[in-house]
Amino acid sequence: MSIDLSSGPQCPIPLQHREKIILGHGSGGTLSQELISSVFLKYLNNPLLEQNDDSAQFELINKNSRIAITTDSHIVSPIFFPGGDIGKLAVCGTVNDLAMSGAIPRYLTAGFILEEGLEISILERILYSMAEAAKEADILIAAGDTKVVERGKADQIFITTSGIGEIPYSHGHISGNNAQPGDAVIISGSIGDHGIAVLAARNNLLGEIDVRSDVSPLNKMLQGILEEGAEIHVLRDPTRGGLATTLNEIACQSRVTIHIEESQIPIQPAVKAACEILGFDPMYVANEGKVVIICSHNQSEKIVAKLKAHPYGVDSVVIGRVDNDHPGKVILHNIYGTTRLVTRLSGELLPRIC
Amino acid sequence: MSIDLSSGPQCPIPLQHREKIILGHGSGGTLSQELISSVFLKYLNNPLLEQNDDSAQFELINKNSRIAITTDSHIVSPIFFPGGDIGKLAVCGTVNDLAMSGAIPRYLTAGFILEEGLEISILERILYSMAEAAKEADILIAAGDTKVVERGKADQIFITTSGIGEIPYSHGHISGNNAQPGDAVIISGSIGDHGIAVLAARNNLLGEIDVRSDVSPLNKMLQGILEEGAEIHVLRDPTRGGLATTLNEIACQSRVTIHIEESQIPIQPAVKAACEILGFDPMYVANEGKVVIICSHNQSEKIVAKLKAHPYGVDSVVIGRVDNDHPGKVILHNIYGTTRLVTRLSGELLPRIC
Repeated sequence: MSIDLSSGPQCPIPLQHREKIILGHGSGGTLSQELISSVFLKYLNNPLLEQNDDSAQFELINKNSRIAITTDSHIVSPIFFPGGDIGKLAVCGTVNDLAMSGAIPRYLTAGFILEEGLEISILERILYSMAEAAKEADILIAAGDTKVVERGKADQIFITTSGIGEIPYSHGHISGNNAQPGDAVIISGSIGDHGIAVLAARNNLLGEIDVRSDVSPLNKMLQGILEEGAEIHVLRDPTRGGLATTLNEIACQSRVTIHIEESQIPIQPAVKAACEILGFDPMYVANEGKVVIICSHNQSEKIVAKLKAHPYGVDSVVIGRVDNDHPGKVILHNIYGTTRLVTRLSGELLPRIC
Repeated sequence: MSIDLSSGPQCPIPLQHREKIILGHGSGGTLSQELISSVFLKYLNNPLLEQNDDSAQFELINKNSRIAITTDSHIVSPIFFPGGDIGKLAVCGTVNDLAMSGAIPRYLTAGFILEEGLEISILERILYSMAEAAKEADILIAAGDTKVVERGKADQIFITTSGIGEIPYSHGHISGNNAQPGDAVIISGSIGDHGIAVLAARNNLLGEIDVRSDVSPLNKMLQGILEEGAEIHVLRDPTRGGLATTLNEIACQSRVTIHIEESQIPIQPAVKAACEILGFDPMYVANEGKVVIICSHNQSEKIVAKLKAHPYGVDSVVIGRVDNDHPGKVILHNIYGTTRLVTRLSGELLPRIC
């Protein structure tokens, strides 16, 4: 037997610099391995990813928890915007969905769909953001996958993240079904920041509109409150469809009426101005770092104080109350004493906001 | 207070027929709800999806299992091919990745990226396939997400699935690191079927090439073997990059040599003929319903017999052995007694195969 053993790839695969994503990076062969070892693992490495098997394996920290899972695909355009990028969004979006069940986020998976020709330096910036956000949220990126499609068959990069969290039984049953007449409705800060920041970046309005996305992982702020035993009925982040749609979902699921005091809703002046010029209602503009909390009235003061002590909750405020006079409806009260019905978002306000 | 309560959406949202996906279906508002309730839930409904919260919640069946998680993005083109479609692939791909760790697949999440203009009847066919595959694999689709991008910014539909499984401790430690000198190498059937079927569908060669994809969930077949206490060291499905790349990964991870008898590798005549005409080496062509099993030599006969008794394993055969003479290398022996080194796939053989 005579074989030239110097041919064939060495083990481990040597690094090689390539400036742009090519179809071969999605082949599952040498180029895929090279991209993983020289780019992805540079930012995301951890013992679970190093297992290098078809799945990552772990043990639950608390064997007596329930498990929460969720998934979100991210297609935001443009991929960089003031306050964040698609990488930060992909981590925070899934972390927040877990946190909205009272879960402690533990593990994240990320599936990347890359367009041929994407600059690798752009991918690196996004991976850096993901790593930073995952570190802040204390979640481990445990598994990943990369596919490449031909130029013109995707838009730079799409990232689908899935998350697994543990819900301690002590966190109670938090659900959109659980709002009760008499409850208070809290929002953790100003609305519309994310949607307007993305819109400004997309339309070259950055000189005129100075708004940063609020994209943030909210799990630590919420854990602090839940660990103190606060009795929270509903947690939900008003993302696509904005605050109006989220409140309608809760009113519908819990079969209650939600009454909101319009004057209490925090809105940044720059967001308000942008919405007025562009003809948007900020109630429908997406948020990525805010939470609606519904809790019994007598807990609301304590919870708002606790939120205000966290950087992501400084503008927290009670904006309304739950009743049962018109189940399934959301009613907005203005300072003149008149009211209007607020429905879900119909049609599309701003596509590709997340 | 006077409000016209007849305006605004009813609860639950009424169905409304639309023939094509529009941007508003990704808005998170009324149209998204409509798409979910009238299309997605028609095929995928189950108690977990009905929870209708930001995450799905469940308890582990066996609190003493380890947990396996994995993710895969699916971008196959064309989306329908002989033997399957992107929906079946998206479920089986993730189910099989779980099964390759010895896990019992439990829950699946699915993130959909839809191109504006996709016919809803096409989406329905894909969802139907997903539901059928999930039923066969006995996995529950627990969470989903849908985004829509403008026409020309994606290619009909991309699906990213993530899976969670439970690994009973009795299944031992199955890993690509675990091949040992003296072990036997088994393949569960003919290679190259999936890649050639997709290629034929893509290039209108269906009249000339009559090959069906092998896309299948392999978990039940493998569970049957593991539950009987077979001592398996490595399980891996030779998908992108084909059998050659998979064997190289294992040789590299386990620091062993893998010797393969070329004449023992099962290849369908139609696949062989197509590869000869097109200049492909079937060793690099993707499979979606085959598994490489590496086990101690004295277990191999029993395992092959058990595989042969299952519809997905009738052509199972021992194709080689593990040694330590040239660690990290895969060596192919032909019937004339000569040998050649088989490396990983370099470059891209067939893009968008999964």
